[in-house]
Amino acid sequence: MNYVTGVVMQFANNKEVIVKSRGKFISKAVDVAEVARRKFLTEQNVTVKNVTIASEEFENKEGKMVHVSVLEITLTK
Amino acid sequence: MNYVTGVVMQFANNKEVIVKSRGKFISKAVDVAEVARRKFLTEQNVTVKNVTIASEEFENKEGKMVHVSVLEITLTK
Repeated sequence: MNYVTGVVMQFANNKEVIVKSRGKFISKAVDVAEVARRKFLTEQNVTVKNVTIASEEFENKEGKMVHVSVLEITLTK
Repeated sequence: MNYVTGVVMQFANNKEVIVKSRGKFISKAVDVAEVARRKFLTEQNVTVKNVTIASEEFENKEGKMVHVSVLEITLTK
């Protein structure tokens, strides 16, 4: 819910807001974007402009390269 | 991993495969699409054609209408 508030606040001064997330938090990011759009930004006609997925590579504690999925949602009004 | 195999198998007979998911399984769907694309379908040049998010409404056990986030990933070769 804090993230939903964050998105709504960002739209006060911006025409576009990007919600980024990684790994297991990706599901939550979709919920945040959808709840913000449906419940709090209906009068501002906020729509989903674009959604992208990708993989990021990083080195874990054991020094091994691992991949994590990333998601970016661009909301626009 | 079963879902990754499923995606790879589908590409044997199709030019496009759609991965759909709901709620907390959305993160897994992104992993499935990304692992299939990066590790098993590199030679077939599979790319992410489109990603969409939306909300579905359904009636829960208590007869209350609730929303669940949905994600669709279209992979193409």
